[in-house]
Amino acid sequence: MSVLIVGSTALDSIKTPNAENPKLLGGSASHAAVAAAFFTPVKLIGVVGDDFPKRYIALYRKHKINLEGLQVKAGKTFHWSGEYEVNMDNRQTLLTELGVFGTFTPHLPESYKKSRFVLLANIAPSLQAHVLDQMQRPKFVIADTMDLWLNIALKDLLALIRRVDAFVLNESEAHQLTDRHNMLHAAREIHKLGPKYVIIKKGHNGAFLSGPRGFFLCPAYPLESLVDPTGAGDSFVGALIGYMATRPGPVENSLRRAMVYGSVVASFCCEGFGLTRTTKLKRSEIEGRVAQLEKLVRF
Amino acid sequence: MSVLIVGSTALDSIKTPNAENPKLLGGSASHAAVAAAFFTPVKLIGVVGDDFPKRYIALYRKHKINLEGLQVKAGKTFHWSGEYEVNMDNRQTLLTELGVFGTFTPHLPESYKKSRFVLLANIAPSLQAHVLDQMQRPKFVIADTMDLWLNIALKDLLALIRRVDAFVLNESEAHQLTDRHNMLHAAREIHKLGPKYVIIKKGHNGAFLSGPRGFFLCPAYPLESLVDPTGAGDSFVGALIGYMATRPGPVENSLRRAMVYGSVVASFCCEGFGLTRTTKLKRSEIEGRVAQLEKLVRF
Repeated sequence: MSVLIVGSTALDSIKTPNAENPKLLGGSASHAAVAAAFFTPVKLIGVVGDDFPKRYIALYRKHKINLEGLQVKAGKTFHWSGEYEVNMDNRQTLLTELGVFGTFTPHLPESYKKSRFVLLANIAPSLQAHVLDQMQRPKFVIADTMDLWLNIALKDLLALIRRVDAFVLNESEAHQLTDRHNMLHAAREIHKLGPKYVIIKKGHNGAFLSGPRGFFLCPAYPLESLVDPTGAGDSFVGALIGYMATRPGPVENSLRRAMVYGSVVASFCCEGFGLTRTTKLKRSEIEGRVAQLEKLVRF
Repeated sequence: MSVLIVGSTALDSIKTPNAENPKLLGGSASHAAVAAAFFTPVKLIGVVGDDFPKRYIALYRKHKINLEGLQVKAGKTFHWSGEYEVNMDNRQTLLTELGVFGTFTPHLPESYKKSRFVLLANIAPSLQAHVLDQMQRPKFVIADTMDLWLNIALKDLLALIRRVDAFVLNESEAHQLTDRHNMLHAAREIHKLGPKYVIIKKGHNGAFLSGPRGFFLCPAYPLESLVDPTGAGDSFVGALIGYMATRPGPVENSLRRAMVYGSVVASFCCEGFGLTRTTKLKRSEIEGRVAQLEKLVRF
């Protein structure tokens, strides 16, 4: 079954202690769409400017991503620039140029509206809600976010959270949203806001799921080389929903394994700048690392 | 098979954001010995002053810990006082009174020398080495440490590490010792220093094993209530070696599961001040939580 993904489609300029890469293909929707496309056809919603390189359009197409919902507007593509510290855990935003993203209103082509699996990747919660408004009875809706929206659009975010099946955020965001340090307590508070499933991302420490069938500790693949973590969280949710869309039966039956696929694709994402590693990835490599993770947690 | 444990036997005064508890039974050897005793008989090596409360001696005995190697000297028992910050991740040492520990030389009773399983719990590496010198061909020796010894006794520590089968330290200590942020790289450097097994403790994110059979990601039990993490690392290694001593065959076959037992007993340790929760623990509760952890990581 196909997956609908909305989020940012951007150019990322990324500095790490070892290298600097200007204007790579980036944005939450780009990372999520490429990750999901390893499993299932993807319908992308986003906006780019008329400066958006043709090779990036070609890259989307190479991954068979449906671009009917990608608007191309006169103006500049959203441009983000960030720099990572030595330990790669912390990063600073150097620059944010919204460009055509500043006036983006997502419109769903008719062919998108019946998608059963929906990923509201990280963008303003009002835009995520606007996409959801246009959907016809999706089976599973998952929303991601970032600290920015907790800071400047909390009301919109809380309104959105009520409407989704699964809500994804990282540890510090969970703490910020609930004022609870304890992950179990934070998850419980977030359930009260609506979502049946709460997924807390913990970077290289994996991810945590809280749902009707209890908790799941999703491992992270231990990486030999961390090149650039940008987009890892987006890859995680992208692969997660992509895998989910291939599984029959109730969501509960496949969510744990879907998280592991998410974790694995995120690990590959970290091995290259932007999408450079992910776009070279083969499905067999993903399966290989999932099998390795199974061995890594067995006791 | 019995386990020999050397380490500190102390009185701990612990402050957390919620409570303050003076002069609890503490020290690395106390925590480790009680944890190990759930699985196998324990022979303790340590020193206390003549102020050491009789009820703590009774507590050791209740857990059937062999005290032939516990010296009682005129003077004060080692007293440590620490305070945890709100998030319980960081703590500050308020006070360290070495007392009789300042002149401690561990002497092994004859009945201790043939122990097959040895835990050198956290004390000065020179004392750990002195115990090892007196042992007759142990099967498995594991050493724990703390940042203090990296700072003030690195040469002794490096000499000790060469002689042990397994070396345990936490993430920040692994980074300090090897100057590597990446856990795989840090483990590799530590293997070069001698140990066949390297175990990196990651607190509520579990623990990591590197050994001849590859890596293992040991989960941590997600706690509803973290009361006091003091001694959790000592409980971890204590239960680990205690479980190991009950298993026949090569070390490789049982080490992963031993770590999970360690992780579980450490989780109970955190649920009370000092040893208050651990000393009330039942073996059936340990087994229950091990079974829960199996379910928590299954996908």
